[in-house]
Amino acid sequence: MSWFRNLSKLSSLKKLPNITSSRNTHPFPLTLLSPHHHHFTTTASSINHVGGGLEPTKPHEKPRVVVLGTGWAGCRLMKGLDPEIYDIVCVSPRNHMVFTPLLASTCVGTLEFRSVAEPVSRIQPAISREPGSYFFLANCIGVDTHNHVVQCETVTEGTQTLDPWKFTVSYDKLVIALGAQPTTFGIHGVHEHAIFLREVYHAQEIRRKLLLNLMLSDVPGISEEEKQRLLHCVVVGGGPTGVEFSGELSDFIMRDVRQRYSHVKDYIHVTLIEANEILSSFDDRLRRYATKQLTKSGVRLVRGIVKDVGDEKIILNDGTEVPYGLLVWSTGVGPSPLIRSLDLPKSPGGRIGIDEWLRVPSIEDVFAIGDCSGYVESTGKPILPALAQVAERQGKYLANLLNKIGKANGGRANSVSDIDIGDPFVYKHLGSMATIGSYKALVDLRHSKEEKGLSLAGFISWFIWRSAYLTRVISWRNRFYVAINWATTLVFGRDISRI
Amino acid sequence: MSWFRNLSKLSSLKKLPNITSSRNTHPFPLTLLSPHHHHFTTTASSINHVGGGLEPTKPHEKPRVVVLGTGWAGCRLMKGLDPEIYDIVCVSPRNHMVFTPLLASTCVGTLEFRSVAEPVSRIQPAISREPGSYFFLANCIGVDTHNHVVQCETVTEGTQTLDPWKFTVSYDKLVIALGAQPTTFGIHGVHEHAIFLREVYHAQEIRRKLLLNLMLSDVPGISEEEKQRLLHCVVVGGGPTGVEFSGELSDFIMRDVRQRYSHVKDYIHVTLIEANEILSSFDDRLRRYATKQLTKSGVRLVRGIVKDVGDEKIILNDGTEVPYGLLVWSTGVGPSPLIRSLDLPKSPGGRIGIDEWLRVPSIEDVFAIGDCSGYVESTGKPILPALAQVAERQGKYLANLLNKIGKANGGRANSVSDIDIGDPFVYKHLGSMATIGSYKALVDLRHSKEEKGLSLAGFISWFIWRSAYLTRVISWRNRFYVAINWATTLVFGRDISRI
Repeated sequence: MSWFRNLSKLSSLKKLPNITSSRNTHPFPLTLLSPHHHHFTTTASSINHVGGGLEPTKPHEKPRVVVLGTGWAGCRLMKGLDPEIYDIVCVSPRNHMVFTPLLASTCVGTLEFRSVAEPVSRIQPAISREPGSYFFLANCIGVDTHNHVVQCETVTEGTQTLDPWKFTVSYDKLVIALGAQPTTFGIHGVHEHAIFLREVYHAQEIRRKLLLNLMLSDVPGISEEEKQRLLHCVVVGGGPTGVEFSGELSDFIMRDVRQRYSHVKDYIHVTLIEANEILSSFDDRLRRYATKQLTKSGVRLVRGIVKDVGDEKIILNDGTEVPYGLLVWSTGVGPSPLIRSLDLPKSPGGRIGIDEWLRVPSIEDVFAIGDCSGYVESTGKPILPALAQVAERQGKYLANLLNKIGKANGGRANSVSDIDIGDPFVYKHLGSMATIGSYKALVDLRHSKEEKGLSLAGFISWFIWRSAYLTRVISWRNRFYVAINWATTLVFGRDISRI
Repeated sequence: MSWFRNLSKLSSLKKLPNITSSRNTHPFPLTLLSPHHHHFTTTASSINHVGGGLEPTKPHEKPRVVVLGTGWAGCRLMKGLDPEIYDIVCVSPRNHMVFTPLLASTCVGTLEFRSVAEPVSRIQPAISREPGSYFFLANCIGVDTHNHVVQCETVTEGTQTLDPWKFTVSYDKLVIALGAQPTTFGIHGVHEHAIFLREVYHAQEIRRKLLLNLMLSDVPGISEEEKQRLLHCVVVGGGPTGVEFSGELSDFIMRDVRQRYSHVKDYIHVTLIEANEILSSFDDRLRRYATKQLTKSGVRLVRGIVKDVGDEKIILNDGTEVPYGLLVWSTGVGPSPLIRSLDLPKSPGGRIGIDEWLRVPSIEDVFAIGDCSGYVESTGKPILPALAQVAERQGKYLANLLNKIGKANGGRANSVSDIDIGDPFVYKHLGSMATIGSYKALVDLRHSKEEKGLSLAGFISWFIWRSAYLTRVISWRNRFYVAINWATTLVFGRDISRI
């Protein structure tokens, strides 16, 4: 007997009209659960899911593009794909894209976390609307290019909900956009003790730890040394992320900590450690300006190489010990173990090899874009930098290319051979931007490091920085929220509740 | 040798002017850390903090009010205390107040989490500004009323930052506002498997689980039964919290799930289980209206008593098994173990006993307000309900009383004997409100259950409900955000990124 019919009998609401749920196509009590309620009596039944999956597409269905990853590359691609031509299936452990250039601002409360996250289904609504399009919360664990199949495993956060299970997805076209992972140069302790700044949960962790340290350092019984250590924020890596985070942190200290944590305001300090020069991709003049501004707002710039990371201190190459309370690691990215393990052509440096049309050479129907991909040596082209700009441009190009192929009836697996695929992808660098705190930013509009060109620094750059990112935030909803967040921070200061 | 002087030498930035941080009163390199850097070489040194604390106030200092807790009662009290008269020290594991009536709305993304959290330092700015006022992120673990001392232990989230340590805080006046904890009636499995709805992190957990279940139920390889189970949301307890959460959930399903999770929209269901009647404190007519509306929007109302809670199903008293994917428990509150353990007079039911001036009888300088307190039997008064309304009114009353006592030079410990403390606290119920989803709410303006009076239900009530709460949100910042959140939800729908 169905447990649900039992429930119905228990209900005290006999006087009411029968339940006629407006959103059910079938009558509610009969369809809610199957009568075999013994399926629920053990958890064992939920463990052994292996082998389920999406079969190859049938002739009457649309061809299927499978996209691995929801970063800049994958999301821009999905946005541009024509859902009239393709069914889109996205596999990623994250159901949203992170607007990474603004992530540093969320750590100190200048922006809300949600303002920098864009759900995939808002980027490409067909994914939730079309019967053959899906988003799967899962990790890709392997690719079988011979059979046009991707192996996946669900992300379930332990047994509280369900144990993870494996499934497969057949593709007509596969786009690998899995990104890269932070580099640690094999330094011991980085993974255990440092926080990266790539995902929203990293920003949340930084924020919680920063606020915890601020509050703990105010509690009676803490020694002076520990107070100093707790409030010493160390950033390793002087690229745009490290510099922007240091700048935001110093803004937070200048404006908010001084007011709201007045007991400890003289103890909090920021140190930025870089092995070479900060912002090495920027113009010399901008770099000097940034150095001066950061120093002026209290960020300590240190040239050094980290040898070891402990839970309360890092050790530099010359033996110097640097106690810290918060350690943020942003020394660039490299290929992930999965990317390394895939049996595909590779570029110098271990990324997935691609030709100038972003195809993986000699493998039918497989493409790779973004930080996980690099030109194979035979193209004679240099590997493009791991920038949002590159990833986004590649996603856009490939969406157009796939739409073109699909229109020419080349959307099915193994059907593309005689189609004109047009011009190759050409990357043109539009320039670099970085904010350095105190309403100041750098804008470098040179097309490459060697060329001459316009470069700006200061308040106007900061204004350009904000405007540029505001217009590039993907949805109107988040554009609106980012603007509101900025205005609120200006008027009311940053939020410091630790939730 | 100081590690910091080492760092200075390493710095490559020799060309720059010396660091002159505008926010340091002392030169930076000399004060940042002590030269004894061996203090940082082991974690052991950070463990043995016991016995630090705030000493009794000296005659030249202001008397000190110690407030335990940051709920409605404690925060309203702190807001009303005059920082010219008292130093205020607040001890709580949470640095913000939660605007609990709107918490249910955050679970489904109608409101942002931050919009319902108000930092203590925004409620009473003196806490971060005055040299003798503090907020301590800690739990109270004992009270020594004889010596006017509170024992505390820090909240540190494991050894990643610091091990917890104990400290003491001496008080001139002590206000216990520690609230209550959810009741489970000793039912096995509630703490392990159900989620309460009292703190922001509860709402975050509910949201993450709900979105996870929605996404998992779409992945190939899941059986029909498991899909049904995962998407079955069960709410136990038909008070305002349970009803409001069910209403919000049904709004979310009606408006957002249908659009964004179209593959699974017919599988998601909400069941509300209550042992007696829902919204028992409301007018009969309103109750019938709520029952009808909730049922209409697809919430299944069930009368039943829960016997046991497992990780995937609950068992009712008659043996019925109810599989669930999300279980929210809101059956009311009772005294916490700490409150029970304190050696203080008690009210019937185990709350801290108070007289009509909210003083703990026969204990000098100790007051108790909010859900943790109740009139002692000798007052002949009934225990007030555990409502925000009661707590807030008590906080306000006690702030005025303490200010009055302080002005009459009774602020010091053991100095209050001959001061006229004025009228006792009288609680007048202003009425109850609850939203039930679909732009509908209940407003019951009767002063007690027996009296006659105005009661409203429907859209106008909903409008009153929103307006009333909007004006009662404490800061202008959050008032602004709540309004913006509501407007955005109306225009763009709810946010579904799982961060």
